Amino acid sequence: MANAPVQRMSHLLAKTLRDDPADAEVLSHKLLVRAGYVRRTAAGIWSWLPLGRKVLSNVERVVREEMDAIGAQEVLLPALLPREPYEATGRWDEYGGELFRLKDRKGGDYLLGPTHEEIFTLLVKDQASSYKDLPVILYQIQSKYRDEARPRAGILRGREFLMKDSYSFDLSDEGLAESYALHRQAYQRIFERLGLDYRICAATAGAMGGSKSEEFLAPAEAGEDTFADCPHCDFAANTEAITYELKPVDGSGVPAAEEIPTPDTPTIETLAASLGVPASATLKNLLVKVDGEIVAVGVPGDREVDMGKVEAHFAPALVEMVTEADFAGRPDLVRGYVGPQGLDKVTYIADPRVAPGTAWITGANKEHTHARNVVAGRDFEADAYVDVVVVQEGDPCPKCGTGLKLDRAIEIGHIFQLGRKYTDALKLDVLGQNGKPVRVTMGSYGIGVSRAVAALAEQHADDKGLVWSKEVAPADVHVVAAGKALQTELALELSQRLADAGVRVLVDDRAGVSPGVKFTDAELIGVPEILVVGRRAAEGVVELKNRRTGEREEITTDEALSRLTA
Amino acid sequence: MANAPVQRMSHLLAKTLRDDPADAEVLSHKLLVRAGYVRRTAAGIWSWLPLGRKVLSNVERVVREEMDAIGAQEVLLPALLPREPYEATGRWDEYGGELFRLKDRKGGDYLLGPTHEEIFTLLVKDQASSYKDLPVILYQIQSKYRDEARPRAGILRGREFLMKDSYSFDLSDEGLAESYALHRQAYQRIFERLGLDYRICAATAGAMGGSKSEEFLAPAEAGEDTFADCPHCDFAANTEAITYELKPVDGSGVPAAEEIPTPDTPTIETLAASLGVPASATLKNLLVKVDGEIVAVGVPGDREVDMGKVEAHFAPALVEMVTEADFAGRPDLVRGYVGPQGLDKVTYIADPRVAPGTAWITGANKEHTHARNVVAGRDFEADAYVDVVVVQEGDPCPKCGTGLKLDRAIEIGHIFQLGRKYTDALKLDVLGQNGKPVRVTMGSYGIGVSRAVAALAEQHADDKGLVWSKEVAPADVHVVAAGKALQTELALELSQRLADAGVRVLVDDRAGVSPGVKFTDAELIGVPEILVVGRRAAEGVVELKNRRTGEREEITTDEALSRLTA
Repeated sequence: MANAPVQRMSHLLAKTLRDDPADAEVLSHKLLVRAGYVRRTAAGIWSWLPLGRKVLSNVERVVREEMDAIGAQEVLLPALLPREPYEATGRWDEYGGELFRLKDRKGGDYLLGPTHEEIFTLLVKDQASSYKDLPVILYQIQSKYRDEARPRAGILRGREFLMKDSYSFDLSDEGLAESYALHRQAYQRIFERLGLDYRICAATAGAMGGSKSEEFLAPAEAGEDTFADCPHCDFAANTEAITYELKPVDGSGVPAAEEIPTPDTPTIETLAASLGVPASATLKNLLVKVDGEIVAVGVPGDREVDMGKVEAHFAPALVEMVTEADFAGRPDLVRGYVGPQGLDKVTYIADPRVAPGTAWITGANKEHTHARNVVAGRDFEADAYVDVVVVQEGDPCPKCGTGLKLDRAIEIGHIFQLGRKYTDALKLDVLGQNGKPVRVTMGSYGIGVSRAVAALAEQHADDKGLVWSKEVAPADVHVVAAGKALQTELALELSQRLADAGVRVLVDDRAGVSPGVKFTDAELIGVPEILVVGRRAAEGVVELKNRRTGEREEITTDEALSRLTA
Repeated sequence: MANAPVQRMSHLLAKTLRDDPADAEVLSHKLLVRAGYVRRTAAGIWSWLPLGRKVLSNVERVVREEMDAIGAQEVLLPALLPREPYEATGRWDEYGGELFRLKDRKGGDYLLGPTHEEIFTLLVKDQASSYKDLPVILYQIQSKYRDEARPRAGILRGREFLMKDSYSFDLSDEGLAESYALHRQAYQRIFERLGLDYRICAATAGAMGGSKSEEFLAPAEAGEDTFADCPHCDFAANTEAITYELKPVDGSGVPAAEEIPTPDTPTIETLAASLGVPASATLKNLLVKVDGEIVAVGVPGDREVDMGKVEAHFAPALVEMVTEADFAGRPDLVRGYVGPQGLDKVTYIADPRVAPGTAWITGANKEHTHARNVVAGRDFEADAYVDVVVVQEGDPCPKCGTGLKLDRAIEIGHIFQLGRKYTDALKLDVLGQNGKPVRVTMGSYGIGVSRAVAALAEQHADDKGLVWSKEVAPADVHVVAAGKALQTELALELSQRLADAGVRVLVDDRAGVSPGVKFTDAELIGVPEILVVGRRAAEGVVELKNRRTGEREEITTDEALSRLTA
């Protein structure tokens, strides 16, 4: 491959900004815009300027190399896709408002691909006919489209974004497990090479379907995901994916339930204060409407209900909060004093923490009255046990019981064992060794390529700006001509010698820009090495500065050349 | 960069076909599908399989290197674009049915980018404020979208296709000419490296606007363009772009016009035959409707009218052919006997070949009657002179007069000096050296990256299949294991040694596939060198075959290794 030409800042399309853009809330958004890497084109739709394109290309290169190394084959499928295959799997409708739909000039229905399970399944159906043709792993790096309701956080959550998506096709569950393991390893190598700090977390499969799924989460304040990390064992999971086992306890010694007068205690706080008990001793019963029918959800009084988990449980039914009007004509529902005992006409789902045998203080279904010693499984039965509470810092690790730590993170990768959801819908069989058709099993795997750049910016920055690792940086060295025409001339000469030796060089050769502004820009842009061609350049002395550590050293030009080309 | 892993055909997603696909009309379509490079996903929408992706990536690499070499900066803009900028330049409507339009969840209007002049203009408006920031050349390689009415010819004319588009921004016309010249040179290097036979032809600017434009045309039967080539001088042009100068002649010696009875001669053929004159002595007057108004178009009787040129002249007015009904109530229009003399109520446009002073036999505007010695400029006046005839083989070269040769060709590149059409519409100014705003001038330049692959397939194929050059081939060598397990083992070992030395290897290690089928597939796939590991492999002798020349040679394994790694 040809050496990259020297990039001259006098010509570079990359206007740096001193101030954060007004609409920027997260660090990566602020820095990538300020340093001239990206610009907003429309809501959630971004343009990658020359420096940004280089970082993106570097991430692409690492992803390609590691995908190739596990024997994955690169392809390129269209982004504009026909409706039919998505109709066949039900995703044309399931995707709801997130799917960009359009018509062609003949009125045919098309969509912009959010992910490509259907099209890859059909491709393999066309190309593979025998067990000899499998297993196969295919991948592509391509723009994807999702019409996010609230695109935010710059390139962290865009409506058009660059993704590596891959798909494995296997004859057996064991084969799928192997393809999954290969991806897991490739992802580890990719994120390590990129220099991302990440955790592999158990995840819900979400809208993709399938059995096993893990997320690669990069801890960052700006992240939209919360994950729990065990400080003791290796457990880590997206909090959405944590569910506690139901562990019944022995409640046989609990005295009989009895009513207690509790005037003016319609909330858990007023109740606990009035009785002098902790909120955790009480049972909170939240009423919701599921497709119009009232359902009660029981959780310990000190816990919040995670409405996302409730919605996931009842999906695709519509879950709404109850309103004042819903209590009209329902004398069985006493607002503020609901208890599960005797709630005959209402479906009751309970959190596993409300296990059979546990005893609670809860509403007595009468105004100003509660009941105590109400035992699950004795005084009431849950129609179903579903983990619906928001995980909290300090909750016990489901694996070892240690108190969990919670952190925000960015989802940078996601791997799924889909199984046969798509191959069933699209009837992908191959002829097995015994001459009979075998239904193929499938995995799907994604890396947010553009999002990885944002995650890198979140994790690798300081108060001066971005701090790229060598693998992804837009250049290896940022040469700063700090002085007059002589310094510029020497800087350009040195830059050319470095480029000839295969070093990727960005040189600040701008005329009429002060050294101070150039230094500030160099730190904002974040190339790993900064080479200052200043006052002593004519004597053959330059300054080499490490962007990360801030260490600086005056050395000879020859020494600088030999270090940078090493 | 890491060495590419060996590609094993036992695992490769690339089903070869013995027969041409039923819907394939052109060579590249047939071969690229049969050899397993591409597959159709929907009308005009294609998937690139592993071998095809590699060729596409190789073309991308060559384009990138040569664009970088002229100082162009790579960016990546979105494909999903907001309506407003295209509204501002008028292209939202002008594009008509070719533009894919869609709405987002909030009802906002978007389009899928067919080209990006507007968005690049706005980007430079945001980034450049001073004359110091220019000139700048930006490029991207990206999927483009055009809703072709009749997508055909495989990847030659798709609705989603890969394109390199670039845009230059300059302060002056001289600057634009320089940016244009840089692109012209880069394109020459790109197409030479790719091994494409091409001609640079003068072109109409089409819907892009602007002044100067040239096309890079690759001669091929499958091409949709016709270009004229002068066998004597360096003139070459798309026939659509050829216009003859108006050269008046001295017609003063021509006798007065006179009517001649010509019963039953409503066509040029019947007229010429009846009078015993060549068709070229007659004047044909074609009637069309332009926005409903009848217009006559005069051309020599032996020439065809190019309706595309007529439409281009009257654009954006609607041009239609007249029908029987249009003659009702128009006694001035005598069907089959129309002549320009006395056609007072009708606009008359004439081809430059009907120059002032030329004399013609033409209709006398009476049934069964013509007129002779009808002299342009004396007996009638054209309202306008417009070159509207179809260029024919043998027409004089506009530069030297030699008879032109005509050929079909594929448009692989197009360069435009746009001037200020877009910068005027979007008001792109920078501060000039004198402190006053300067309106920026612009060029736009495209290479059809996916189309170039089709053009290569058209130009580099023989009756056995594809014949790639080393620069674009999906591998450097195709190793064929021709025999039993021993040959396969040796072939894989040899392949690995080649790969370790940086050679890109495709190895046919399929079990249960005969050597004959493997040879046929190797020739169809078209990798430049074919290395056969056959009967004598155990003795250390293999066969090396050149795909292009067909030359084959038995040599030692060591010799093969040393030649292929040279």
